[in-house]
Amino acid sequence: MPAYPRPLSQLIEQLEKLPGVGPKSAQRIALFILKSPRLDPELLAGAIAQLRRSIRTCRRCGNYTDTEECDICRDASRDAAQLCVVADARELLAIERSGSFLGRYHVLGGLLNPLDGIGPEELALPRLLQRIRDEGVREVIVALSPTVEGETTLHYLVNILRPQGVRLTGLARGLPFGGDLDYADQLTISGALQGRREL
Amino acid sequence: MPAYPRPLSQLIEQLEKLPGVGPKSAQRIALFILKSPRLDPELLAGAIAQLRRSIRTCRRCGNYTDTEECDICRDASRDAAQLCVVADARELLAIERSGSFLGRYHVLGGLLNPLDGIGPEELALPRLLQRIRDEGVREVIVALSPTVEGETTLHYLVNILRPQGVRLTGLARGLPFGGDLDYADQLTISGALQGRREL
Repeated sequence: MPAYPRPLSQLIEQLEKLPGVGPKSAQRIALFILKSPRLDPELLAGAIAQLRRSIRTCRRCGNYTDTEECDICRDASRDAAQLCVVADARELLAIERSGSFLGRYHVLGGLLNPLDGIGPEELALPRLLQRIRDEGVREVIVALSPTVEGETTLHYLVNILRPQGVRLTGLARGLPFGGDLDYADQLTISGALQGRREL
Repeated sequence: MPAYPRPLSQLIEQLEKLPGVGPKSAQRIALFILKSPRLDPELLAGAIAQLRRSIRTCRRCGNYTDTEECDICRDASRDAAQLCVVADARELLAIERSGSFLGRYHVLGGLLNPLDGIGPEELALPRLLQRIRDEGVREVIVALSPTVEGETTLHYLVNILRPQGVRLTGLARGLPFGGDLDYADQLTISGALQGRREL
């Protein structure tokens, strides 16, 4: 291997730890940081160094925030009667990007996964039950990924939430927008058939 | 768009400037920096902030270094009689990775490109001529990419270096290792035919 000067090889080593960044792109990014006039390395370094210090989770819903409660929880125009339960803050952001939900969220902080030792006590369930009681929630939308862990968690939540007297809904299964029927797997097709709608 | 907390959106904005990093991967990397126990953000931030301060170009060959002269120029075991001319330090590193060259390098700092206003005076040519005279160079290997700018620069170098009384060579043209004849373009195939070797 070539002898990179130490400052370069140290940076490349750090960059390779990032998701989706292999040795080649780490080198490319490092040389870009070294030379590009379009980037201020101090700004980038500062943003990275500050991140963990300044971001925490909303004490109400678990979303990322830099204040006590997140923007969504503090937004009085959001409908408190609809509570959307998600696994993590990243999925909350994905739903927010769709712009199609105007209620509030609750972040579980994970999915049940017995193999990895993640049981119900690892998830933010007591706070969820308390919010349903305190905040006038009438519908809980369980918005979990359709994976084994997601389905397991969905069934567990249904059992817990059924006695709460709220409407329980889940995301629709079906073909993704732009998806090709030819390439869809059997479970997706059978879900799309079961959930077929009147035209 | 979702309201990311400011520290997150600021970092995502910076990350999107990096080559090969789009909005989705910027978000993914930012959340990884926020949460992953495998990464120390302070180390990454420090490496980025220090890079431009600590890296300079070797005063002899133009390679990246954190000292006056680069490791290769200071390595007495490298053959000074063979001088490999490359466009930039990144290509030097690519050749070093191949482990197949044990001479020294000279970095031009670019390729001739009249459209972009890059003429001979932008390249490290006076230093190249001086090194050929001073360092006992017997062969100059012109290792430039086979692009329009590379070929233009190659011809210009041949004209300048011919009178210096050194052996002038260029990289072989041919099929890349693992390349498929079926997919090779005409110029590559004609180069591979012209450069055919005895078996």
